[in-house]
Amino acid sequence: MILVDYHQMCTVFREILLQEGLSSHRASLCATILADNTLDGVASHGVNRFGQFVEKIRNGQMDKEAAPTKTTAFAAFEQWDGNSGIGPLNALAMMDRAMELSDEYGLGMVALRNTTHWMRGATYGYHAVSRGYPCICWTNTMANMTPWQSSTESIGNNPIVIGMPGKKTQAVLDMALSQYSYGTLQTINSFHELLPFDGGFDRAGNLTRDPGALLQSRRVLPIGLWKGSGLSILGDLLVSVLSHGTSTLDMPTQGSNPCQIFLAIHPARSEDEMEWQRTYTDHVLAELKRICRDNGEEVSYPGEGTATRRAKNMRHGIPVQDEIWESILGSL
Amino acid sequence: MILVDYHQMCTVFREILLQEGLSSHRASLCATILADNTLDGVASHGVNRFGQFVEKIRNGQMDKEAAPTKTTAFAAFEQWDGNSGIGPLNALAMMDRAMELSDEYGLGMVALRNTTHWMRGATYGYHAVSRGYPCICWTNTMANMTPWQSSTESIGNNPIVIGMPGKKTQAVLDMALSQYSYGTLQTINSFHELLPFDGGFDRAGNLTRDPGALLQSRRVLPIGLWKGSGLSILGDLLVSVLSHGTSTLDMPTQGSNPCQIFLAIHPARSEDEMEWQRTYTDHVLAELKRICRDNGEEVSYPGEGTATRRAKNMRHGIPVQDEIWESILGSL
Repeated sequence: MILVDYHQMCTVFREILLQEGLSSHRASLCATILADNTLDGVASHGVNRFGQFVEKIRNGQMDKEAAPTKTTAFAAFEQWDGNSGIGPLNALAMMDRAMELSDEYGLGMVALRNTTHWMRGATYGYHAVSRGYPCICWTNTMANMTPWQSSTESIGNNPIVIGMPGKKTQAVLDMALSQYSYGTLQTINSFHELLPFDGGFDRAGNLTRDPGALLQSRRVLPIGLWKGSGLSILGDLLVSVLSHGTSTLDMPTQGSNPCQIFLAIHPARSEDEMEWQRTYTDHVLAELKRICRDNGEEVSYPGEGTATRRAKNMRHGIPVQDEIWESILGSL
Repeated sequence: MILVDYHQMCTVFREILLQEGLSSHRASLCATILADNTLDGVASHGVNRFGQFVEKIRNGQMDKEAAPTKTTAFAAFEQWDGNSGIGPLNALAMMDRAMELSDEYGLGMVALRNTTHWMRGATYGYHAVSRGYPCICWTNTMANMTPWQSSTESIGNNPIVIGMPGKKTQAVLDMALSQYSYGTLQTINSFHELLPFDGGFDRAGNLTRDPGALLQSRRVLPIGLWKGSGLSILGDLLVSVLSHGTSTLDMPTQGSNPCQIFLAIHPARSEDEMEWQRTYTDHVLAELKRICRDNGEEVSYPGEGTATRRAKNMRHGIPVQDEIWESILGSL
């Protein structure tokens, strides 16, 4: 591992994206999103996937020029087409649009079809929460899980993001509906270790902590077994139906572009209420930690660890695998 | 078990609620909701809890006269106070209000504070879906789960409901965020059986399938371990902050009344789009079943079993434990 300065990472990403023909504004935005993800400790959706991201621009899987276009609108609800544009830019624009709608209507929802991978969902959660908006975002994915009582890979792990702004805190949950990601399985398997908890069913249909068995069976566990399976099915329906888009199962025949929804809620019409909401968010999170601490336990809320990692990596540099960083520098 | 006719159950419930002083309209509505829950196979939130429901009316925990009142409004978003009224009536009225708002604004959200137990969340999901509205509802509860890496009962199992209407199908997911409910643990424990999958941690902190150990430790598992723990925290924040209500942890000191949100999305402005949405929902669900069936597997989607049970119980009568039905008849 080497430590890379955050600003240097932004500059390097930006330069490479400019080489690939992105406009200055788009190159800067993408570079910042991918560097921020790495800064927050999510290298899998940052520096480690940068090469793949550039490749998708180069081979046209993501259209570097495309911007989303509005297809229908009904007051606080809008449908947009992502036109196979750059996933993170599409998603950021749609989160902005949902916030704009909520300024006018109290809440706003954008359903986006025909977009590309948004990389890390929390990006859009933090984007809204930093501006004071509670939000929910959801995406579907290609089939990468098996529904309950099935060995057929036919549902997605459809990540969901929920954010709530406090005054001093930011609660942002970003979770895929699989217990472990394939990235985690591969990493732990490469160390020849077991998962800390059951990760799915092996080929014989038994629960297992062996990541190698799961990479073979491709039967990773939905969170909560039958419950996460149901949540995945409903999440896919919400994003694909509301966006007039493509469900997980139709992706192989209709292009693999996912659909997403972005819901923003206006914090409050009055300053007093806004103040109360943010203060109460801080209070609830502090109270949870206090009550557990009284029992000698250190409990953290979603997003708390991110804030800590972000501050640390900003100060000391971001840990990056040497060969990955060298390969990126090599393409400059 | 005896089999009780659905209409007889409605009549008996209604008579008893009239005796308790409910108005004719309110008695009929409550009777139907509780009978429907039983009809759908969820006796735990129907006939089995009817005695407790009546008791809460009698002792004033639920105010039989109270109706929710609007506290603030900002176009498509409204805050209401449930005034400790009858939970299912409050929730039904708020789901109706969210649908009304979505008729005007494309989507509508009602955040309700100071209400009482809504019984079975799916009631409001089916209410919206039967009328053609996609919806999301969420409630918080008293502390009944432990957050990740803690043995302190300090988060709720905060059930979430998501509904999507098809033409021939209704997908309705209604799930608490605990892997098993305390009701299920008690039932399985009374048979001296083990849970089919790990249900939580015993007092020593080990995962266990023994329901008795979990009734002692009160450390039931959030779905997906750390993931369900995070989902519970964010769900509680959303419903309590947006409604200007009471978080799980504040319930013991501020009265135990939960908060809820009801989000309805207008199906579509045009007839064509509405037709497409419902047809596509049917298609996605049928496709999921077909692909699994091609592998020799029978997979069902959330709500599918409910429809089957409903039809069967309507035809043949609803199975009820003899002593429970006798006790209810005894109070007539």
